[in-house]
Amino acid sequence: MTTRHPLPVGLVGAGRMGSFHAETLARRLPGVRLAAIADPAPGAARRLGDRLGCPTAYTEIGELFADPGIEAVVIATPARTHADLVEAAARQGKAVYCEKPMAISLAEADRAIEAAADAGVPLQVGFNRRYDTGFRAAHDKIAAGTIGTPQLLRSLTRDPELADPARIPPWTIFLETLIHDFDTLRFLNPGAEPVEVFAMADALTRPDFKDRGLLDTALVTIRFDNGALATAEANFQAVYGYDVRGEVFGSAGMLTMGELRRSHLTAYGPDGIAADCVGYDQDLFHDAYVAELADFTDRVRTAGTPSVTGEDARAALSMALAAIRSITTGGPVRIDELQDR
Amino acid sequence: MTTRHPLPVGLVGAGRMGSFHAETLARRLPGVRLAAIADPAPGAARRLGDRLGCPTAYTEIGELFADPGIEAVVIATPARTHADLVEAAARQGKAVYCEKPMAISLAEADRAIEAAADAGVPLQVGFNRRYDTGFRAAHDKIAAGTIGTPQLLRSLTRDPELADPARIPPWTIFLETLIHDFDTLRFLNPGAEPVEVFAMADALTRPDFKDRGLLDTALVTIRFDNGALATAEANFQAVYGYDVRGEVFGSAGMLTMGELRRSHLTAYGPDGIAADCVGYDQDLFHDAYVAELADFTDRVRTAGTPSVTGEDARAALSMALAAIRSITTGGPVRIDELQDR
Amino acid sequence: MTTRHPLPVGLVGAGRMGSFHAETLARRLPGVRLAAIADPAPGAARRLGDRLGCPTAYTEIGELFADPGIEAVVIATPARTHADLVEAAARQGKAVYCEKPMAISLAEADRAIEAAADAGVPLQVGFNRRYDTGFRAAHDKIAAGTIGTPQLLRSLTRDPELADPARIPPWTIFLETLIHDFDTLRFLNPGAEPVEVFAMADALTRPDFKDRGLLDTALVTIRFDNGALATAEANFQAVYGYDVRGEVFGSAGMLTMGELRRSHLTAYGPDGIAADCVGYDQDLFHDAYVAELADFTDRVRTAGTPSVTGEDARAALSMALAAIRSITTGGPVRIDELQDR
Amino acid sequence: MTTRHPLPVGLVGAGRMGSFHAETLARRLPGVRLAAIADPAPGAARRLGDRLGCPTAYTEIGELFADPGIEAVVIATPARTHADLVEAAARQGKAVYCEKPMAISLAEADRAIEAAADAGVPLQVGFNRRYDTGFRAAHDKIAAGTIGTPQLLRSLTRDPELADPARIPPWTIFLETLIHDFDTLRFLNPGAEPVEVFAMADALTRPDFKDRGLLDTALVTIRFDNGALATAEANFQAVYGYDVRGEVFGSAGMLTMGELRRSHLTAYGPDGIAADCVGYDQDLFHDAYVAELADFTDRVRTAGTPSVTGEDARAALSMALAAIRSITTGGPVRIDELQDR
Repeated sequence: MTTRHPLPVGLVGAGRMGSFHAETLARRLPGVRLAAIADPAPGAARRLGDRLGCPTAYTEIGELFADPGIEAVVIATPARTHADLVEAAARQGKAVYCEKPMAISLAEADRAIEAAADAGVPLQVGFNRRYDTGFRAAHDKIAAGTIGTPQLLRSLTRDPELADPARIPPWTIFLETLIHDFDTLRFLNPGAEPVEVFAMADALTRPDFKDRGLLDTALVTIRFDNGALATAEANFQAVYGYDVRGEVFGSAGMLTMGELRRSHLTAYGPDGIAADCVGYDQDLFHDAYVAELADFTDRVRTAGTPSVTGEDARAALSMALAAIRSITTGGPVRIDELQDR
Repeated sequence: MTTRHPLPVGLVGAGRMGSFHAETLARRLPGVRLAAIADPAPGAARRLGDRLGCPTAYTEIGELFADPGIEAVVIATPARTHADLVEAAARQGKAVYCEKPMAISLAEADRAIEAAADAGVPLQVGFNRRYDTGFRAAHDKIAAGTIGTPQLLRSLTRDPELADPARIPPWTIFLETLIHDFDTLRFLNPGAEPVEVFAMADALTRPDFKDRGLLDTALVTIRFDNGALATAEANFQAVYGYDVRGEVFGSAGMLTMGELRRSHLTAYGPDGIAADCVGYDQDLFHDAYVAELADFTDRVRTAGTPSVTGEDARAALSMALAAIRSITTGGPVRIDELQDR
Repeated sequence: MTTRHPLPVGLVGAGRMGSFHAETLARRLPGVRLAAIADPAPGAARRLGDRLGCPTAYTEIGELFADPGIEAVVIATPARTHADLVEAAARQGKAVYCEKPMAISLAEADRAIEAAADAGVPLQVGFNRRYDTGFRAAHDKIAAGTIGTPQLLRSLTRDPELADPARIPPWTIFLETLIHDFDTLRFLNPGAEPVEVFAMADALTRPDFKDRGLLDTALVTIRFDNGALATAEANFQAVYGYDVRGEVFGSAGMLTMGELRRSHLTAYGPDGIAADCVGYDQDLFHDAYVAELADFTDRVRTAGTPSVTGEDARAALSMALAAIRSITTGGPVRIDELQDR
Repeated sequence: MTTRHPLPVGLVGAGRMGSFHAETLARRLPGVRLAAIADPAPGAARRLGDRLGCPTAYTEIGELFADPGIEAVVIATPARTHADLVEAAARQGKAVYCEKPMAISLAEADRAIEAAADAGVPLQVGFNRRYDTGFRAAHDKIAAGTIGTPQLLRSLTRDPELADPARIPPWTIFLETLIHDFDTLRFLNPGAEPVEVFAMADALTRPDFKDRGLLDTALVTIRFDNGALATAEANFQAVYGYDVRGEVFGSAGMLTMGELRRSHLTAYGPDGIAADCVGYDQDLFHDAYVAELADFTDRVRTAGTPSVTGEDARAALSMALAAIRSITTGGPVRIDELQDR
């Protein structure tokens, strides 16, 4: 360790995800201190801070970035603000952890990456599945060659409840949901990069919102440069719970990932066998959300390099943008022909 | 093969189990012919024979045994008649397959074994679980040393429906149900023999029948001569279906056996995860019931030795009788002190 | 039943699948008789017939079709011969069961369907998964509305061993393997029809055979007219065994199908938890293969209508041809624009 | 809440379990403060305290109990010291959480319970499985009548590694390991109490230590006053990992509990299906260990009554002592005839 005092971290965005990260910073990580919270909504940062014993609250995010007592920031604001905030924080010399997606255009992503590089600060992105025990073990086995060369991959995300469609920006299913699956596919096909993308999508759950651009069901096919073929699949209304699974079939074996059971309890009765489902992403990925901030803050403290980078965020974004383009054009889209929207 | 013509087999007992065996003999086994059926109930043998194209029906079982056109018999009558029928069939020189239990006293068992030995005919007993793919694979692994020395074993049987208690003889749970588990424990602890037995039992499902001697719930503890400790467990009213499981824990690993799912279909809905249960022993052990008769008839045709013997039946019976004695005395019972009831 | 004598059935094609069907006709189906076998390979029909007690063998398939003692035929020859044989058998007034694919062009399929209609004979096609307990139960639940409207479907087939690539015709993965998955997707999305198909495929297992047109890995995306999006996926070298699975996600729940375990035995040791895989399609679908011939012969005997029709075969073929077209053109293909190759 | 300042808690015993509890008190529980640590081993309390930012360390446990700045204590010392420490802490007016077993004789247990009652302080005992999500959900379902009346129960514990046998006190398997299972059986059979106990045990893993009284394999049968029959089973060397499972069969259904998989990753290869096992109790019960201290400290802060009481500890101890007696006498032992060793 290069620092011995607790690392002072500032949290930006006091919403659902931000509150969870705030608790992690305040309580779950030895050697870390939640030093300030910023949220433009009046009182939000203060209320969260009071609950967690955090001394400082800002409604101006820029003030937190300018605070010399802060060494690292965790950005958990709405997606469209991410890239600018990464850039601003990096310019103030802060180490940056940013929730996914780090950017929603390639130009933005490039500016954010460049700002961090120019400032010489670490930049980590919130692809939490990389920190889940099962997905990580799968990655490690694949990287070690256990299942040979990946040939067919699958990653899916089904959210238990459709948030108010009126508040969801267009293309959310690609930019905010499937972005996880795009990253997972790259994570589980180490060293390979996507070449071509074809997407189908629809508004099946809420057809009335289709004309506002809200798609709630999507199926994306991707060809990688090592020949592997992959699908990423998402839906916004899984009535049974939170469903995240992965599968990698290779020349020497297969790995499957995903847990739909809430606990190890199984019930047997006149109607058959029954078990409860996982209901919520913060149940399913609780430990992974903690582990990613632990990894980020450890690397900041030890001057290490982040393991999930701005480049990873850009690559997943490319896949999302190609999928959106594919929906628009009705045909497959090559990643290398992709230009910004 | 020593014989080239289809082996003519006679079936004794046209009830539920007998009918299944009759179908197997008539249709499922190449090289085997269902040549005659005997059942004392007027018309029962004839009706079953008509359905299966079997030419000969008897109401006198002795006539079937005396029929020179029959080389082997399958005995599927009520348990209390088994040993005498084995003896009678063997005396007529027939190869004998007998449903479990082969006998309900040690003296009877000894007479049946001796009759088969004197006549030089093969005698096989219907412990069908030995022919189930999973239980057999477990046995083979254990015999090969895969899990080291067995230390803790478990075998259980739960029947989905209590037959009319008024028609069930006393001690049925030990002599007809747990007899399977006692044999399974010996099968899964190869080479070891039971030393001491302790049993608890009760009439929990139908307390009103307790004074008639009907016990519907039993838990038996057994110590084997290789140190292994085992439980056998039975119940007569599993509302969720037919439940047969096994477990062997050894110095180098553990094996578990048992399938409660009816098929590979799993349903996920707002109430969680659901699957159907196995409902019936002839669903669960369909293939095992066929395989045991295939093995029996093969060995008869090739003059081989049966793989489940009268001695196996006697050993399982000893455990059942020791369990009954334990219920009567309230204390543990040593197998070597066991004398016949 | 309209006939009381055993239904005389002729088998055409004495290869691997044909031999299994022959055993089923000879032994496993009451009320059915294997009356003749035809195979052009000298001695093949005779040898199989001798083993099963079938009296008549032909090397000219046309002679079997002309045999007045035959009421129904089971066609299990190579795929490219199917449609012509269906046509020829129907013209001789035989009820026809034909292995999949029934045809490899739409024109052929139409001729076969028309021939059966003209002759007034039943025509059933060998989509055996429809007779598997789990897949059938899934279909029934979906048809009953249990999971609402299907939105995302998946069907996959992975064969355990690549047959000699030199002997595999081009496009086999679509016409002979994925044809099962295309039918399964229609079966599990009852009433809906495919609208658009996009496919990616490659020769990943044996790249050296790619220039001969052998593709061993394929991923197909399908849009149905009820909005559902589906994937069909195949590979020719699953080192772990025979892998057939299905999944249907709907507005009110999800169903998963597929069994990879060979038995209910699980082993626990220092290296973790282990179980054996299913190795072979005739293990996995043994009961389904029997059930489909039982259904076919029952319907022939009772003058019923087949439940898997020539039209079903044509619909699955359309999806396969659209996938092949998609590979050729590199873009999505609409079913209604499909013209024959 | 009756107190607003963080609850100051003292930890007694800085070993493996104590260190885990110390981390929980220091970091994982809002509203709680690890105020002091006591351990007689020189430097042990100080080292642990330094790591966790705990200001005060004692080598005299009595000094911690006398510290007026401490409101509650967590006792995690060796088992034989527990009861005396509970008594001493209670006399100083501290709320007491004590690791299991709370006592190793009934007289001791009674004194500890009485001391807490006299002092009017809460006394909670460390049966952590009651706080595991799956076991707790099972309890709740059973208490709600979901599976009717319990008839057959099973609880088992298999530890992955035999601690140095020379350091294990005699009867450990009953007093320290199976004590969990005895409590679990009571927890899963709510309102019922044990009536009769029969035990078999042996030194199968390390026969050389049998003459020192070390038993490493035990199987205990228990009859409850509602008729239910139960087994508790333990072994000290499960090569595959940490194995804790439960099963309750009732008149209206069955529940099973237990998780042997380390994560949701499954691997399929030429040797079949594989998954990793749980290796360690603090992996398996991590959340339960935290939840039990959260519950204890919440109840202390709100002046509530503990949910796992000294009386629960005494009841489980009675079962352990009856099992020991049964081993000594070779016969069943009635709980109501039990007198202290």
